[in-house]
Amino acid sequence: MNRYSSQKKLLAAVDCIIFGFDGQQLKILLIQRGFDPEKGKWSLMGGYVQPDESCNEAASCILKELTGLEGVYLKQLQVFSDPNRDPLERTISVTYFALINIHDYETQISDDYHAEWFPVNKFPKLIFDHNDMVNIARKQLQHEAAIHPVLFELLPPRFTLPQLQGLYEGIYNTQLDKRNFTRKLLSTGLLTRQSDKDKQGSRKGAFFYKINKKAFRQNYLQKDFFLGIK
Amino acid sequence: MNRYSSQKKLLAAVDCIIFGFDGQQLKILLIQRGFDPEKGKWSLMGGYVQPDESCNEAASCILKELTGLEGVYLKQLQVFSDPNRDPLERTISVTYFALINIHDYETQISDDYHAEWFPVNKFPKLIFDHNDMVNIARKQLQHEAAIHPVLFELLPPRFTLPQLQGLYEGIYNTQLDKRNFTRKLLSTGLLTRQSDKDKQGSRKGAFFYKINKKAFRQNYLQKDFFLGIK
Repeated sequence: MNRYSSQKKLLAAVDCIIFGFDGQQLKILLIQRGFDPEKGKWSLMGGYVQPDESCNEAASCILKELTGLEGVYLKQLQVFSDPNRDPLERTISVTYFALINIHDYETQISDDYHAEWFPVNKFPKLIFDHNDMVNIARKQLQHEAAIHPVLFELLPPRFTLPQLQGLYEGIYNTQLDKRNFTRKLLSTGLLTRQSDKDKQGSRKGAFFYKINKKAFRQNYLQKDFFLGIK
Repeated sequence: MNRYSSQKKLLAAVDCIIFGFDGQQLKILLIQRGFDPEKGKWSLMGGYVQPDESCNEAASCILKELTGLEGVYLKQLQVFSDPNRDPLERTISVTYFALINIHDYETQISDDYHAEWFPVNKFPKLIFDHNDMVNIARKQLQHEAAIHPVLFELLPPRFTLPQLQGLYEGIYNTQLDKRNFTRKLLSTGLLTRQSDKDKQGSRKGAFFYKINKKAFRQNYLQKDFFLGIK
């Protein structure tokens, strides 16, 4: 008997890390567990993979069952498989993450399972290794924010620089200097200033901006780098 | 009974996609299976995850057992979990991929298990969904090649432009125009020409180049984009 013939079965689960931006703050969607173990504690949304479904199907299905959210693009992140991560039974977990604009989905979130948005810098301690999962997802988000400096999925069509700064502060878990942030961001040529202002945040107001999609495609989609030279 | 309490166990395996560059061609390391099912057919290197190890540990361990390769950086790719992917028993597979410089490792490859390098554009049909796994790994490789236009891990310290072109042709599975490739690549400022030539490929010879690591860090590690404005 060796690893090529020895078949010791285990449980497979999926867990979803859902980040959302409400225009001010980066948030994370958590659920209060209604079942043992750890009933009543906060956790990511997850459940066991069933015999007739793939992990991707399980993730979409669980997200829909627990929150009502449909049509969210879930990206597979990584597998958590420490032998002792679940105290009851060997379970490996396949994690997924998503970015959504909270306002696009707020009417969909179902109340049945007590799902709640928390600021990403201040949320309850989670069960098992779920805090590690959030940390890994956040690193992935930072990585994607660096490759695609403006995160389309999270932004409303028109947004202000303070809003964008709030988003990046959430992603990088840090305070950014307003003047430097503005200067650096405008120097990318990725944003187009609109003629009107948002007056909700301050009396002076803040100009609305839109993403300059043409500049974005030209400068930041390096995918084309080598394909363009055929 | 629902998915939150129903615990139907399954098997978990890992499979490794090992890409190597021998200075001319991009290759893939395959193994002739010595066990059923599909004994004698070609496959990726893989095996079942054991009770006392994580998937990452299983992957490193399997790679060492089957090829003798040690110290290879394996990156988790994605989970393949179609319910019918393994005809005998429900098995989900966590895939890993690695890029190596073949010459750095050639003495390590063990003969015990019949592992063999094949050109990435011409290799035998593989068992199960292993061809899909190779395709996904290849897409990942293309993605990484675009973000980091020069693939450090695969290159010898000094290399020629024809060598580099061979590598990119393997990655993108296409023929590149030599003049355009050279022009575009040199325009990045990422390569520093050396004073001597490699005369093995042609009588005229091809200059050796090195990677300009400083320029690479400055221009292509966009990770620093927002972190630099704190």
